[in-house]
Amino acid sequence: MSTQPIRVTVWGENVHERTHESVRSVYPDGMHTVIAAGIRELHGDAVTVQTATLEQPEHGLTDEVLNNTDVLTWWGHMAHGKVDDAIVDKVYNRVLNGMGIIVLHSGHFSKIFKKLMGTSCSLRWREDPNERELVWNVRPAHPITKGIPQVIIVPHQEMYGEYFDIPQPDEQIFISSFTGGEVFRSGCCWTRGQGRVFYFSPGHETFPVYYQPEIKQVIANAVGWAYRDPSQFINFEVTKAPNAPTGWFEHLGNG
Amino acid sequence: MSTQPIRVTVWGENVHERTHESVRSVYPDGMHTVIAAGIRELHGDAVTVQTATLEQPEHGLTDEVLNNTDVLTWWGHMAHGKVDDAIVDKVYNRVLNGMGIIVLHSGHFSKIFKKLMGTSCSLRWREDPNERELVWNVRPAHPITKGIPQVIIVPHQEMYGEYFDIPQPDEQIFISSFTGGEVFRSGCCWTRGQGRVFYFSPGHETFPVYYQPEIKQVIANAVGWAYRDPSQFINFEVTKAPNAPTGWFEHLGNG
Amino acid sequence: MSTQPIRVTVWGENVHERTHESVRSVYPDGMHTVIAAGIRELHGDAVTVQTATLEQPEHGLTDEVLNNTDVLTWWGHMAHGKVDDAIVDKVYNRVLNGMGIIVLHSGHFSKIFKKLMGTSCSLRWREDPNERELVWNVRPAHPITKGIPQVIIVPHQEMYGEYFDIPQPDEQIFISSFTGGEVFRSGCCWTRGQGRVFYFSPGHETFPVYYQPEIKQVIANAVGWAYRDPSQFINFEVTKAPNAPTGWFEHLGNG
Amino acid sequence: MSTQPIRVTVWGENVHERTHESVRSVYPDGMHTVIAAGIRELHGDAVTVQTATLEQPEHGLTDEVLNNTDVLTWWGHMAHGKVDDAIVDKVYNRVLNGMGIIVLHSGHFSKIFKKLMGTSCSLRWREDPNERELVWNVRPAHPITKGIPQVIIVPHQEMYGEYFDIPQPDEQIFISSFTGGEVFRSGCCWTRGQGRVFYFSPGHETFPVYYQPEIKQVIANAVGWAYRDPSQFINFEVTKAPNAPTGWFEHLGNG
Repeated sequence: MSTQPIRVTVWGENVHERTHESVRSVYPDGMHTVIAAGIRELHGDAVTVQTATLEQPEHGLTDEVLNNTDVLTWWGHMAHGKVDDAIVDKVYNRVLNGMGIIVLHSGHFSKIFKKLMGTSCSLRWREDPNERELVWNVRPAHPITKGIPQVIIVPHQEMYGEYFDIPQPDEQIFISSFTGGEVFRSGCCWTRGQGRVFYFSPGHETFPVYYQPEIKQVIANAVGWAYRDPSQFINFEVTKAPNAPTGWFEHLGNG
Repeated sequence: MSTQPIRVTVWGENVHERTHESVRSVYPDGMHTVIAAGIRELHGDAVTVQTATLEQPEHGLTDEVLNNTDVLTWWGHMAHGKVDDAIVDKVYNRVLNGMGIIVLHSGHFSKIFKKLMGTSCSLRWREDPNERELVWNVRPAHPITKGIPQVIIVPHQEMYGEYFDIPQPDEQIFISSFTGGEVFRSGCCWTRGQGRVFYFSPGHETFPVYYQPEIKQVIANAVGWAYRDPSQFINFEVTKAPNAPTGWFEHLGNG
Repeated sequence: MSTQPIRVTVWGENVHERTHESVRSVYPDGMHTVIAAGIRELHGDAVTVQTATLEQPEHGLTDEVLNNTDVLTWWGHMAHGKVDDAIVDKVYNRVLNGMGIIVLHSGHFSKIFKKLMGTSCSLRWREDPNERELVWNVRPAHPITKGIPQVIIVPHQEMYGEYFDIPQPDEQIFISSFTGGEVFRSGCCWTRGQGRVFYFSPGHETFPVYYQPEIKQVIANAVGWAYRDPSQFINFEVTKAPNAPTGWFEHLGNG
Repeated sequence: MSTQPIRVTVWGENVHERTHESVRSVYPDGMHTVIAAGIRELHGDAVTVQTATLEQPEHGLTDEVLNNTDVLTWWGHMAHGKVDDAIVDKVYNRVLNGMGIIVLHSGHFSKIFKKLMGTSCSLRWREDPNERELVWNVRPAHPITKGIPQVIIVPHQEMYGEYFDIPQPDEQIFISSFTGGEVFRSGCCWTRGQGRVFYFSPGHETFPVYYQPEIKQVIANAVGWAYRDPSQFINFEVTKAPNAPTGWFEHLGNG
C-alpha cells in the first residue's frame, strides 16, 4: 500500500572477490552486485537498491545511508573482525528502531548477527563440491515462500549442519538436507525490537548460488517481508527507559 | 502487490440483536453490518465485503461463499451450539488451505475457534459498566498495530480475564488490563496450516465498541495481515498424506 | 522431588501385530509391550507402567485408568477411525487438565493428535527398506535429549517427509533427514491447557525401532518431561468460563 | 533424579544497600542475602547457595565460582555500567554452555541481560508507593508456577510497564497489572544456547518484596527449572564452528 519504494542497501564484505580467483571468476563485480541485481530484477520500481562494502569509509554505512535504509542485506566471511564495532552498534540500533535485516550464508558469524541473536551462532560446515543442498519449504503460504516450490535444489553448496546455535526461530521457513546426511535450519525469522531479521544460509562465494532464480526469489520476498512502513514506528526511545507519571497515557487519547 | 481486492466475509450470529433491546439499540442492523462497514471504510477498493448470518441457509457459508472468501471474521455468543458441525468443518478446511480468520470477543467459545486451537478457550468474565479496558500494544511495528497508539482506551467493556486457555500465541499483539485489576491476552496470532488466525477480544454486544475508530483500525489491519494471495498456496492435499516415491521432487524442478 | 512414581499408560492399537506376519515376527507380543518394557527398564521404580489396547472395553481407557494416568503414550495406524469419539474426548480433557501425552510415529493421524493440534497433521511418506533415518538433536541440554547423541542413526525406517502440517512446535527437539533427501520435524513439543504434548516420529511396525536403545531413551525422557505433579494443577474448570465478581481474587489471598 | 545439590550463586550489586538508608532499613545485610536465604529455605539440601557482589574482586565471579555455578541470579540497578565487560563475557559463555540465569527486576538493564536478549530491554517505570502489582499466572502447571496461586498480590511495588523491548518470550509465565492501569510481561522464559534464562520483575530495593512467600517460591521454582544436569551438555565448542568431514557422525555411533 506504500507508494514509496523500499530502500534496500546490499552490504558485501567484497574481500574474497578481490583476493581469490575462484571467487572472482564467479562474481567478477562482487557478490553484492549480483545480490543487488536480483532484488532489482524482481521488485522493479517497488525498490531502490544501493550497495556498500567493507573498504568504503564507515564501510559504506554512514548515518546518511543507514537512516535511509529500510532493509539491509549482509554477506561477510573472512573479515568479520574488521567491521568496526561503532558501525555494528549503529546497525543494531537501526534494527531495533525498525530497519529490516537479511543475513546471508557465512554472515551467521558476523558481529551484527551474533549481537542480535544473543548466542554464538556456531554451526558445522564442510566444503565439498559433491554436496547438494535440498532446501525444504516448511512454511507454505508465508510471504517469504511466495512462488517457491516445495523444495529448492541447489546443485552444489557448502554443507552447513546442526547444531546451529541460535535462539529457536519465531518462524521456521526452510530446513535443508545435504548429500552427506546433515540437516540445517536454513531459513529463520525473528523480531528484535521493531525490526525483523531473516537468516538464509544458501549462498556461497565459489558456487553461483546467488544467480539461481529461486534463491533470488527468496531474497526478494524477504525484502518485502522485512520492510516496515516507517510511519508506523512508535515514538519510543529504545535506549533509555522513560519515567511514566500516573495516567501519562490519558493525555495521548486514542489515534 | 495484488491487484485483486481482498474478499472478506463478516459472519455474525445476529441473535442478540433481534432478541435484546439493549443490543438492538446499539446495533439496530446487527453487529455484522457495523463490522463490515468499518472494514469497507478503511480499505476502500482494496476489499469487497459481504456478510453472512446464522439464520441463513448453511449459515450463509455455502461452498460458493467460502471458496470466494479470503478472510472471514467471526462473532458469535449465545448460539454457538446451533452452528452446524458440517459448516464448521468446511470453515476449518478453508483455514488450513489458506483462508484467514479473525475471531472476535465471545467468539472465543465458538466451535471453529476451539477446533483450531486444540484447547478449551475458557476464560473469566464479568459484565460491569464500570469496567474500562486498556488495550496495550506490545508489538509495535507489527502490521496489525499500524496506526494504533501505545494503548487503546475502551471506556466501557465486559471484563475478560486470565487464565485464558489457549496455546501460547505465535505472536502476542495486545494485552489488556481492566479497572478491576485483571489482565487478558486480548490480541493473539497463530498459523494453522496455510491459514492465519487472529483473536481480538474487545467488542461486546451492548457497548458500541465496534464503532470506535481504533477498534475498526485493528480489525481492518488484521484483514490485511490474515490475507494470503491464493496463487501462493502449495498444491497439497491436507487431508490425506501422500505417498512419495524416491526422488519425487526431482521431476518438479525448481520454480 | 516427587516420591510418587509416574503412572504411565502405553496405548497400542495392536491390530497389525495380529494380522500381519511381518509385524508379528518383530513384535510378537505387540508393540505396546516393547514400548512399555523400555520405559520400565530406564525409569525403574520411578514409574508404574500399564498397557491398554483398542480391542479392550473402552479401548482400555476407562475413567479409572485415565484418572490414574500421568502420561499416556499413543501408537495407532490402520484403525484410527475405530477409536470411539467419546474416548477421544475423555483423553483430550485429561490432557487439558494436565495429563502428558506422547504420540508416536503413525499416531500423527490419530483423532486425538489432530484434535490437539488443530491442523490436518498430514505428511509425505515412503516405505523403502533402504531408507536410513538420521535423527538430529537440535536442542542439546533439553530434558528430552538427556543422554542422546548429536544424531541417532536408525538403520531402516519408513520415510516421513515435509510438508508436515502441524502448528510450529513450541520447542523443536529433533529434525531428521532420510537417504532419499527428505527432511522431517521428527521431535516436537507443545503445551495444550495444563498438559504437555510430545510427538516423536521414529518407530515403525516392521522395523525393530522400539528396541533401539536411543529410541527407548528418548521415549523415557519424554515421559519425565511430560509429567506434571497433579498437586500443582489449578482448580479451573476448563470447559465452562466462570463469572468472576469484582475482587474475586482478593478472597483467595496468596498461597 | 540428580543426587548432587544444585549449585546456586546469588549475585547482588549491593550498592543501594550501603548508600541509601531507605534500602538499608529493609535489607540491612543486602538484598542478595535475603534472596539467598529464600532459596535455601525452600530447597534445603537440594541446593548449595553462595553470594557474590560487585565490590568483590572480579565481582565475586571468578572462573572458580562460575565453573561451579549451575544457576546464577542477578540483581543490579544503579551500577550496571561498573560491571566489567570481561566478566559479562564469561557469564555469557557459561550461559551458552548450560548455566541457568535468573534476572531480577532492574536487572533488565544489566549488560548480561541485554547481551542475551539482543534488544534494548527498555520499559516504562514509575515509583509510587500507592501502586499495587497483581502478578497473574498465565501458565498453570509450568514448573515455575508450582504452588503459585492464580494471582500474586504485591501490595507495594514500583510500576514497570509496556512497551518492554524484549524478544517475545519462549514461554510467557506471568503478566502483571498495576493500580495505574499499565500491564507488564513480568515472568518470561528463553533458551540461549544450552542455558535457560528467566526474567522476573517483582522485587524492588525499598519494598520488602523478596521477603514475600510467593515471590520466594517463584525464584526457588525458577532455580529448579533453570538447572540442567552438566552431564547432559553436548561436547560442542560454541565459539568456533567446527569443520565436519563427510560421515563424521558415523564414527560416533549411537549413545
